[in-house]
Amino acid sequence: MYELYIANKNYSSWSLRPWVLLRERGIAFAEKLVPFDGGAGANWTTFRAFSPTGKVPCLRDGDTVVWDSLAIAEYLAERHAGVWPHDPQARAWARCASAEMHSGFAALRSTCTMNCGVRVRVDAPSDALRKDLARLDELWNEGLARFGGPFLAGAEFSTVDAFFAPVAFRIQSYGLQLGTASMAYAQRLLDLPAMREWYEAALVESWRDPEHEDEVRRAGTWLQDLRTAG
Amino acid sequence: MYELYIANKNYSSWSLRPWVLLRERGIAFAEKLVPFDGGAGANWTTFRAFSPTGKVPCLRDGDTVVWDSLAIAEYLAERHAGVWPHDPQARAWARCASAEMHSGFAALRSTCTMNCGVRVRVDAPSDALRKDLARLDELWNEGLARFGGPFLAGAEFSTVDAFFAPVAFRIQSYGLQLGTASMAYAQRLLDLPAMREWYEAALVESWRDPEHEDEVRRAGTWLQDLRTAG
Repeated sequence: MYELYIANKNYSSWSLRPWVLLRERGIAFAEKLVPFDGGAGANWTTFRAFSPTGKVPCLRDGDTVVWDSLAIAEYLAERHAGVWPHDPQARAWARCASAEMHSGFAALRSTCTMNCGVRVRVDAPSDALRKDLARLDELWNEGLARFGGPFLAGAEFSTVDAFFAPVAFRIQSYGLQLGTASMAYAQRLLDLPAMREWYEAALVESWRDPEHEDEVRRAGTWLQDLRTAG
Repeated sequence: MYELYIANKNYSSWSLRPWVLLRERGIAFAEKLVPFDGGAGANWTTFRAFSPTGKVPCLRDGDTVVWDSLAIAEYLAERHAGVWPHDPQARAWARCASAEMHSGFAALRSTCTMNCGVRVRVDAPSDALRKDLARLDELWNEGLARFGGPFLAGAEFSTVDAFFAPVAFRIQSYGLQLGTASMAYAQRLLDLPAMREWYEAALVESWRDPEHEDEVRRAGTWLQDLRTAG
């Protein structure tokens, strides 16, 4: 059986991507959660025990180690139907959008880091954040309109939805505003069984990682902490 | 025929990746070079005419627009043999290494930006740069040893070599030092016909982009400018 190494569900946006993909596509796997241990350098040492980059996620399939989220998607796509859309046009688009998320949206990722359990108001969004949100809205609208929804590249949940799943939690945590179709899509992601399962597990985690907590407090005005343990 | 939109050969490391992949795999394409026009904001407006992210590279195949380097590789891999290694283990490894480059090596990419025609001495490499170089050396050694060379994932040039091709120019420009096997591999990349063609075209470009020129001057001590025009 696949083993998927991930970090804290409350914080780790990269972990969420393959996790929600596997769950929503009904592919069995064993979850191996290794929490952050207080600082990037320390994490690197801990995570190097199972991941060559010292980062999560990392998929193990017997002796094969697949240590990047996009490579995990391609590895699974060679073995299971529906990981990417069947239609070649939708598949090409989905791969572009996923790769754009993989290397881009730097302002969104750095100023609104994923923290499922908190609510923060972004008082003064930077120009870079506004630009990222405008591009996100444009991209989501294009996919939903062109391939007919309800998911980004058509009727079924695929890798491209998994790649934007953390953005739905960011929208919820930071009160970010996009257009009507995009907000409805984000809510659709939040309502998925796998996303609800992840969210509920995030709320009951008792670990608090100082670096991640500092990041979210720098983003704006702290409103609420819904986490129930810790 | 495919149309590949790229920017200046002297500066644009992302453009080089699909360009050298297409050339080395013998896949015909029309090159569409649009030079940087002085500042990220201005480039964005210019490049938006052909690329939805306002970035290069962008591949056009009839009506299909493929706007990310890794998505371009996957698009080509569905249509041409040899874009990824044939062996499944080598292919999984190559995809991981390529994806790691796609989203990682931030210190190497930001402090030693590609500038084919100059020679600069890095006087005080940061800890982050040292760490990136150590990981690069480890990764290259692993691929070369495990799959037998002379390329990273075996006997043939594939996408993973294309993804690290700009690093060979960076090693040359900044005098970076890796282990013996890695240095030999970097030289092997520089000696490829497609890499020589790109390099010679870079040297005779007359455009100078202030932002890219500033970046390289901040990296260390300026030694030499081999560009013959401008």
